[in-house]
Amino acid sequence: MDNFIFTSPTYFVFGKDTENKAGEMVKKFGGTKVLIHYGGGSAVKSGLIDRVKASLDKENIPYILLGGVQPNPRSGLVYEGIELCRKENIDFILAVGGGSAIDSSKAIAGGVLYDGDFWDHHSGKSVEKALPVGTVLTIAAAGSEGSGNTVITHENGMFKRGCRTDILRPKFSILNPELTCTLPPFQTACGITDIMAHLYERYLTNTKDVEVTDRLIEGLLLSVINEAPKVMKNPQDYNARANIMWAGTLAHNNVCGVGRTQDWTGHSIEHELSGLYDCAHGAGLAVTMPALFSYVLGHDVARFAQIAVRVWGCQMDFANPEITARKGIEALRQFLISIGMPKNFEELGAKEEDIPYLVDALCCGNGRPGYIEGFVKLDKNDCEKIYKLMV
Amino acid sequence: MDNFIFTSPTYFVFGKDTENKAGEMVKKFGGTKVLIHYGGGSAVKSGLIDRVKASLDKENIPYILLGGVQPNPRSGLVYEGIELCRKENIDFILAVGGGSAIDSSKAIAGGVLYDGDFWDHHSGKSVEKALPVGTVLTIAAAGSEGSGNTVITHENGMFKRGCRTDILRPKFSILNPELTCTLPPFQTACGITDIMAHLYERYLTNTKDVEVTDRLIEGLLLSVINEAPKVMKNPQDYNARANIMWAGTLAHNNVCGVGRTQDWTGHSIEHELSGLYDCAHGAGLAVTMPALFSYVLGHDVARFAQIAVRVWGCQMDFANPEITARKGIEALRQFLISIGMPKNFEELGAKEEDIPYLVDALCCGNGRPGYIEGFVKLDKNDCEKIYKLMV
Repeated sequence: MDNFIFTSPTYFVFGKDTENKAGEMVKKFGGTKVLIHYGGGSAVKSGLIDRVKASLDKENIPYILLGGVQPNPRSGLVYEGIELCRKENIDFILAVGGGSAIDSSKAIAGGVLYDGDFWDHHSGKSVEKALPVGTVLTIAAAGSEGSGNTVITHENGMFKRGCRTDILRPKFSILNPELTCTLPPFQTACGITDIMAHLYERYLTNTKDVEVTDRLIEGLLLSVINEAPKVMKNPQDYNARANIMWAGTLAHNNVCGVGRTQDWTGHSIEHELSGLYDCAHGAGLAVTMPALFSYVLGHDVARFAQIAVRVWGCQMDFANPEITARKGIEALRQFLISIGMPKNFEELGAKEEDIPYLVDALCCGNGRPGYIEGFVKLDKNDCEKIYKLMV
Repeated sequence: MDNFIFTSPTYFVFGKDTENKAGEMVKKFGGTKVLIHYGGGSAVKSGLIDRVKASLDKENIPYILLGGVQPNPRSGLVYEGIELCRKENIDFILAVGGGSAIDSSKAIAGGVLYDGDFWDHHSGKSVEKALPVGTVLTIAAAGSEGSGNTVITHENGMFKRGCRTDILRPKFSILNPELTCTLPPFQTACGITDIMAHLYERYLTNTKDVEVTDRLIEGLLLSVINEAPKVMKNPQDYNARANIMWAGTLAHNNVCGVGRTQDWTGHSIEHELSGLYDCAHGAGLAVTMPALFSYVLGHDVARFAQIAVRVWGCQMDFANPEITARKGIEALRQFLISIGMPKNFEELGAKEEDIPYLVDALCCGNGRPGYIEGFVKLDKNDCEKIYKLMV
């Protein structure tokens, strides 16, 4: 196990009706003037924004609103948010929505106090300070409510880049599983896929003797696999929604990723897809994961066999572990199909003829050295083959 | 799943040589004059205290020392520590040791800023404020390095009582598994038993649909069961020590206990044993757990069968789940014996003739209403039978 530092100071308020505590939480963490940052109309139409506003009114905390965050949140709105916060002397950002609203809020929070282009933070420069961020989560997926991560798509080129720092971890996150009960099935399934990807990308490690984190990841995957069919069948199943929501947070606050190398080539490969086609991140991951895992399986057959046995309940083929390893990947693929995810480029809306562009953007875009590296080092030739496996 | 609040803001610094960062961490969290609070001679003899002092010297942070914390830490030293901190204007307490040194430090931290007897905090009064506490952990066991708990034995009557509040969670905890490599086997095994008890006491819940927390607990138990024999065979096995240490922290920072009722009758039953006989807490738990679990098994056979199958690898007897449930408890009992724990009153140093006293202290001591309650409500008659099962 490698040395590590871990801190997850976010104050989680979990359960029914908890959005009504938003004002109380902003006050607890010192906010005196708030930007409520959110996405489309559903948060307004459902009455959620009104409930959040009422809870701020109750604490006599003034606020302004900035909606319009899109899935795969864009740089343009971040620049707009930064200007608005400066002009209005905002000292707290409250994200209401999913990973997109939260990621956009974090990017704004870092940008407001930075004397330069916020995109620097997404190009490797560390964030020195940021406004505090709180969240009211409406979809279990990105894990951004408990992480220091933010991923933004730059409109000049449509490429996605991430930034990670403990400074951007939310001060509080309000998690009410009821808010996710009205999500369309496709969005629910995309969220579940994203959660599973966060777990798989941590599972694929080159560090030895990481029993505890292996077991935690397996436990969270088992939970999601057990609960997902329940919410696909009955979207109102509160307890299944609750289990998936807490699993989603723990999948990405890094409690199960410490002391080990992680992968993240899967997310990189996917980011080019959702960057170019604006498809749902989860849908892109559903197509990416089985292809990537099949391609890199030979790097550590035992690890893929382990997850096949412990998570997917495959019988171990002791004479030929690769058979077991492949069965686990196939079980993942079938599971993702069963919850309504796309299985190939066509269903995703991607095009085979774009592969050279995708490969180039992936391996050489934004200053990358001609390859990506995680569990396995993947050069342009490898990445081309992986994209072709998705066709 | 029940509504919950969860926060675990402790900054964990994990790995080899990390004790040399103690000074840097105290500075990061605002300490300007430190009480180093520790136990017996081993922390001095091993050179650990010298390394911690050197790291404080490097940051020009003055300190004073207060050693002598005993296992099952006593109220007398807490009173002494409180007086010393006030006299010396201490603003940070650095615990160097195991759960006893940390618990004693927390009790002092709460007492220094309280205008009354610190024991009030162990009698139900909430802690309003406390000095910040940091830790350098030397044994994987109590989980106090990541929790808001402190358990103290009052010397006037020799009874143990706990206190729990997020205010007492350490600001930072330094976890170097190397420091645990020199522990005697008995202490190592006692620590492992304590970790397992923290997991079992959370597992025994009356809340339904708690898949995620169930799976996390099972994963941590599986890890400990896998790693424990390695350290018993080879005390220098760094990776096994590291896995057990991180499991011990996560077993008790409550990440796997949220949203569900918990038990803790096992700890209460044991506290009377270590309070009266001054036996090791882990040893007392090893004798308590199988007896308690056998006694309450009928309350939820399915839950005991689930842990038997998922954690202990027992075959499920679908026609008679109670058989499986009992096999799981027997597997726990045999495991504890295998790592050198006592199996009954005699081996623990407890006496059958004391049972009436133990039952009375347990159910009626310190203002208790004549029973204890957790997974199952246990009156004096129940508790008598449970203690008799340990004979």
